[in-house]
Amino acid sequence: MFDFQITAQSGRARTATFVTPRGTVQTPMFMPVGTQGTVKGISPQELTDIGSQIVLANTYHLLLRPGPELVAAHGGLPGFTAYPGPFLTDSGGFQVMSLGHMRRITEEGVTFKSHLDGSSVYLSPERSVEVQQALGADIIMAFDECPPYPAEREYIQASLERTVRWLERCLTFKSREDQALFSIVQGGVHADLRQQSLDATLPFATPGFAIGGLAVGEGKTEMYEAVDYTAARLPSGKPRYLMGVGHPEDLVAGIALGVDMFDCVYPTRTGRFGYALTDDGRVNMNSSAPRSDLGPIDPECDCYACRHYTRAYLAHLIRAEEMLAPRMLSLHNLRYLHRLVERARAAIREDRYAEWAICWAERYFKGKNKADEMPGIPSWFLRSVTAGV
Amino acid sequence: MFDFQITAQSGRARTATFVTPRGTVQTPMFMPVGTQGTVKGISPQELTDIGSQIVLANTYHLLLRPGPELVAAHGGLPGFTAYPGPFLTDSGGFQVMSLGHMRRITEEGVTFKSHLDGSSVYLSPERSVEVQQALGADIIMAFDECPPYPAEREYIQASLERTVRWLERCLTFKSREDQALFSIVQGGVHADLRQQSLDATLPFATPGFAIGGLAVGEGKTEMYEAVDYTAARLPSGKPRYLMGVGHPEDLVAGIALGVDMFDCVYPTRTGRFGYALTDDGRVNMNSSAPRSDLGPIDPECDCYACRHYTRAYLAHLIRAEEMLAPRMLSLHNLRYLHRLVERARAAIREDRYAEWAICWAERYFKGKNKADEMPGIPSWFLRSVTAGV
Repeated sequence: MFDFQITAQSGRARTATFVTPRGTVQTPMFMPVGTQGTVKGISPQELTDIGSQIVLANTYHLLLRPGPELVAAHGGLPGFTAYPGPFLTDSGGFQVMSLGHMRRITEEGVTFKSHLDGSSVYLSPERSVEVQQALGADIIMAFDECPPYPAEREYIQASLERTVRWLERCLTFKSREDQALFSIVQGGVHADLRQQSLDATLPFATPGFAIGGLAVGEGKTEMYEAVDYTAARLPSGKPRYLMGVGHPEDLVAGIALGVDMFDCVYPTRTGRFGYALTDDGRVNMNSSAPRSDLGPIDPECDCYACRHYTRAYLAHLIRAEEMLAPRMLSLHNLRYLHRLVERARAAIREDRYAEWAICWAERYFKGKNKADEMPGIPSWFLRSVTAGV
Repeated sequence: MFDFQITAQSGRARTATFVTPRGTVQTPMFMPVGTQGTVKGISPQELTDIGSQIVLANTYHLLLRPGPELVAAHGGLPGFTAYPGPFLTDSGGFQVMSLGHMRRITEEGVTFKSHLDGSSVYLSPERSVEVQQALGADIIMAFDECPPYPAEREYIQASLERTVRWLERCLTFKSREDQALFSIVQGGVHADLRQQSLDATLPFATPGFAIGGLAVGEGKTEMYEAVDYTAARLPSGKPRYLMGVGHPEDLVAGIALGVDMFDCVYPTRTGRFGYALTDDGRVNMNSSAPRSDLGPIDPECDCYACRHYTRAYLAHLIRAEEMLAPRMLSLHNLRYLHRLVERARAAIREDRYAEWAICWAERYFKGKNKADEMPGIPSWFLRSVTAGV
């Protein structure tokens, strides 16, 4: 169980199979986010159809509502949500910091007020693991603190040391053998603090390692220097998970640096806002051009929306504020990211990952339909995809 | 084409097959409403899966947005919406009255201001048929006026006479052979005015007849007396369509009186509001009881929601304001009405319709889970289901 077998490599990018209790998954992979026990607007059958492998759920949200007891009464997240495949739950640590009010962090744990009703809630390494055991995901995460950006070096250092002590408490408390607990390397954008976190975390030899504390406001250059540094120093025989990332370009760059797992609300959130992901960049379906476009979002895409609908119809649904619009754009965007990692895996197997990534980026960053101005391939991206060549 | 063959009868209730260009359908049937070219939240594949046969779309809404030209550029509603089966469009008359502002009705037609942007729009018998020909439904409706309730007898009489003159203009203008135009009998709740409308409308021998002007605020007793009177005087060899109706009890009562076709936004609208239709009445999923109920909405239902989800999970989705909640409750409610007419057809084939209807009503009107107080079977319902026995 939780065996991680590398099947191909191209530079530092690799493909692998990872065995979980609810199925063997292929990496690199993107994990859709089902914060409250549902990937917004998408059914479990659709997730299976578009090639989703692991679904992420948020401990913080499910702890507050409906509570872990109700999820456990359904036999855990698969019974509750009807998604039959593997799940990953985060520890709640990140959301306590970003959503909780009046939080008080001590060595013992964190007390905060619920963003829903202001009630007082307590999370600690032990309580987080207890809740995650009740939720029943295949992969659970160590309870950590993710410092904000920017933060004082001294704060980041104290925080990462406490995160290591909390990791030890998580592992001591954990009792379910059928759940893998991943540890999280912190250290912000400082190479020496990343090293310190690595030195303290690697000895626990958890079945997977996450890179935390990034994509919280630092620039792409600093972020990818930290990913580069950290991923290169994680054991090659264990999965590497870059938390809360990302956009298409983040997946392509992260995979080049040896990352295996990603998650982000971006595809569903940007879909609800009317944006569609394509190889030509992000298409703004709220603009006027799609209203008369009789072609699909993406002629190369095999999702339900692209096989059935014109851009004109989807643009009509958006203007008419019809629920089918966010549903279909979310579905397409998830499928786009799944197809992107599928293409990345194929390029790795053919040992031409950097070449494929640059070719993809040439079109993506120059896309005619792009919503944002991105003149050419950014240097952080080029450095990342050529780091292992 | 548009052949209507009665296959079984039980009292005045009947089953039939009705041939349309996009497929042969079984009556009695309930038609989901896709006002703006989408049944809210539901994909065409799901409509097919739950047994939808004809989808209704609204001429008024599609005329204003996106405009008939764009729908025609997709080859009509099937190409635009990706629902491959038969469509029915209404004439726009009803919505002009209920949604248009500053409307001015003359013998020639109706001028009104769009509820979307206040722009001036004109509809007439000729323009309605022109738009409905561009939308390309299999069944199109005569441009009529539906008087409000209550209205003066004199107004209803003048209106129904004009509606007949408008019907003649619709038929003169109509040029597409592959679309059936249904006429609409008006007359409010007055038997003599219904008779007058029937006398003037029946000679046109349209391929189907609608009963209009009901379910606009009159009581159930008056409404069903009008349905009873009108349906009994329509030719038996043509489909009868009770417009804008209904609730489950309306379908069961209307079928008993010989109605073949129904449409209503009720199942999707009440679903979006958190209500689920069952044989025990309407379940309020917003209340506290479902939050801990590990059973499905309806153990006898075969919809995706009932096969996969507990009431507790769906109640969680509602409280969490997740899009999957209105989607799944809409899907279930549509399937409930489709299953209801399927069961009605089976009872008609076994020539025990009234017996089945009363048995169904015993449970429905006494349902433990009902949202509204309905003490026992109402007399209008009993009178309707026993009218033909």
